[in-house]
Amino acid sequence: MSSPPRAETFPANTPAVSQIFVTALSQGPLTRLELARRAGLSPAAVTKAVRPLIEAGYLVESVDEDARPALGRPASLVRVDSGRALFVGIKVTGDEVIGVLTDLCCRVLLARRLPLGDRAPRAVLATLADLTQELLAEADGLGVHVVGAGVAVSGDVDRAEGMVRYSPFLEWREVPLAELAAMTTGLPVTIDNDVRALTVAEQWFGAGVGLSDFALVTVGAGIGCGLVVHGRVVAGAHGVAGEIGHVTVDPAGPLCHCGNRGCVEAIAGDAALVDRVRAATGAEVTDAAEAAALAHEGVAGAQEAYARAGEAIGRGIATVANLLGPERVIISGEGLAAYDLFAEQIRNSFAAAAFGSAAQCDVQTRPLPFEEWARGAAATAIHSFIGSGSHQ
Amino acid sequence: MSSPPRAETFPANTPAVSQIFVTALSQGPLTRLELARRAGLSPAAVTKAVRPLIEAGYLVESVDEDARPALGRPASLVRVDSGRALFVGIKVTGDEVIGVLTDLCCRVLLARRLPLGDRAPRAVLATLADLTQELLAEADGLGVHVVGAGVAVSGDVDRAEGMVRYSPFLEWREVPLAELAAMTTGLPVTIDNDVRALTVAEQWFGAGVGLSDFALVTVGAGIGCGLVVHGRVVAGAHGVAGEIGHVTVDPAGPLCHCGNRGCVEAIAGDAALVDRVRAATGAEVTDAAEAAALAHEGVAGAQEAYARAGEAIGRGIATVANLLGPERVIISGEGLAAYDLFAEQIRNSFAAAAFGSAAQCDVQTRPLPFEEWARGAAATAIHSFIGSGSHQ
Repeated sequence: MSSPPRAETFPANTPAVSQIFVTALSQGPLTRLELARRAGLSPAAVTKAVRPLIEAGYLVESVDEDARPALGRPASLVRVDSGRALFVGIKVTGDEVIGVLTDLCCRVLLARRLPLGDRAPRAVLATLADLTQELLAEADGLGVHVVGAGVAVSGDVDRAEGMVRYSPFLEWREVPLAELAAMTTGLPVTIDNDVRALTVAEQWFGAGVGLSDFALVTVGAGIGCGLVVHGRVVAGAHGVAGEIGHVTVDPAGPLCHCGNRGCVEAIAGDAALVDRVRAATGAEVTDAAEAAALAHEGVAGAQEAYARAGEAIGRGIATVANLLGPERVIISGEGLAAYDLFAEQIRNSFAAAAFGSAAQCDVQTRPLPFEEWARGAAATAIHSFIGSGSHQ
Repeated sequence: MSSPPRAETFPANTPAVSQIFVTALSQGPLTRLELARRAGLSPAAVTKAVRPLIEAGYLVESVDEDARPALGRPASLVRVDSGRALFVGIKVTGDEVIGVLTDLCCRVLLARRLPLGDRAPRAVLATLADLTQELLAEADGLGVHVVGAGVAVSGDVDRAEGMVRYSPFLEWREVPLAELAAMTTGLPVTIDNDVRALTVAEQWFGAGVGLSDFALVTVGAGIGCGLVVHGRVVAGAHGVAGEIGHVTVDPAGPLCHCGNRGCVEAIAGDAALVDRVRAATGAEVTDAAEAAALAHEGVAGAQEAYARAGEAIGRGIATVANLLGPERVIISGEGLAAYDLFAEQIRNSFAAAAFGSAAQCDVQTRPLPFEEWARGAAATAIHSFIGSGSHQ
């Protein structure tokens, strides 16, 4: 339980090494020439950067058998050896801890979950340690080192300082989670806000690959947003950023937990939908799944609640597009299960509120399996391991 | 009128050279050690980067007479030779062309304005060329080369392509202004959206110096916003960004020219204020100055219009803060002339709508003399000349 963090380090001693590795990681396999072009470096710089990565086993180079030419030398492709290192990713919710073991390319090898009886830091850390031990035992069977863990929590999380400043779901304030989790798991630990962690996963391994500016909007209990601007995740000078859930849609709308009225979250978050469906139909609805079921059955009051939520979400997305002009907006989250109930309203309301060519922004949806949040946490661990954060 | 663009180029052959120069430009004079620290480079890298800049006369190094120690060697300070090159900055409005001549540190040496009878590109270019000739004649007297010009226009401007995509005030679509202006002035020309140009000026020479994340909000005929995120001005993937004027404040509010209702600009822009003051008071108000005069006289309907505008602006700023978490928001623009009429409402509405620690954002005001927009254009010319855009 309290072995010191393992000492394996990534051989990234220059920004170019990090950059080449990240390019191969998110866009590979690639020829050296293509790697140079995409990373904006000279072929000589690529040669220099690739060498230590191949020597340490993080990159491998092999002939592209699929593209063997009739004459001449076949092209060599550089790719990441995904099995070179493993990572643990953990998402802490209000009532369970979800963990995944991933390879270096953030592919989920296995997923586990444990219920959380008590939300106090001590209890959460104990569960988190148990879950990590389970995953490490499985990793031992694979004969590959786990070199880092990521933990994702909703709320105001200071990644650099390793502190959970405030998490409403857990009722935590100023918990030095990174240090505590490193002690109990024996791994180097990176913590981050859950939506930002998911954004890192999308940037490197998902629908954000190759884009310098995109937004990830998560729909579910809360309405969150991760932003990538100029190739980097926006963290906010004071710890707050991406609060699309608190864009005002209607100043005369329902009261939000933040104290204002008519925020996107106060109209489109799970709790708001349940309240509104209950009020409109008189049915004893207790969660979002039941609310959606009523709407799917064609109950008018329930359908109207989802339509209104879709309008609010579309307005929020348009606000992001009007301010930042991202290339793409990815909509994800548990709320996607009910997407057919408000997809049209999201698109129409986005199109109406987008200003000029901001409407050209590509709005996509992407399903979110339950372990995806934990995978996001693993992505932050990979990010920290590669250490590119310190170079960019 | 049609001499070829002058060939003087800046000796920035590496990103480090650009970075050191920009640091000295915006934060100097500094010792070499401090220059290294602020630019995040090694002292050796600074020595290497400084040499060509001193040789070409862009940087000078001299003893700091103010800080001569009692014993030992006095500190040497590196500073930009502001007189090494001059720049022209031009702002085109719907009814005049404003031009400034600046030094390399973007200090305005002189300002000129010419009325615009006709908004057609040909007429605007002729006026722009006349104004530039006036400024060049003055520059000749100083014996320093003018090495570039910047032209700022409101609307959708594609700086990289040199195209004005759409400017509602000028009623222009797809005008290749950079190329046309280069032909008529004989100078290399950079064009940009006027608010973004002003943002560049604030970032390098104003209230944004040393900040990696800030917003500039301009209040006047329109409500605009320039954003700097991760140290760079946000341009938007599709040409639109910073449209704080089209953040919705009240979906039941007045119709906006963009087709939506209750946008910040439809409540707080000059035209909206004039309309509302006229409707509320019955007075024959024709411009913002008259509307503000009535409010200053204590006419209740006029005061209420400004109070409502302040609430809308504060809400818009909070939306920017909630999404991006900037360190600072700078409020500027012609509308500041009436700032006392809505300052309190801006602050209160910002504080109420800011989410959590986003409220810690430093909201400042900054007066905007009439030539400031043209100075912003000169800043983009300096930016292009240094060529850092291509390295960052």
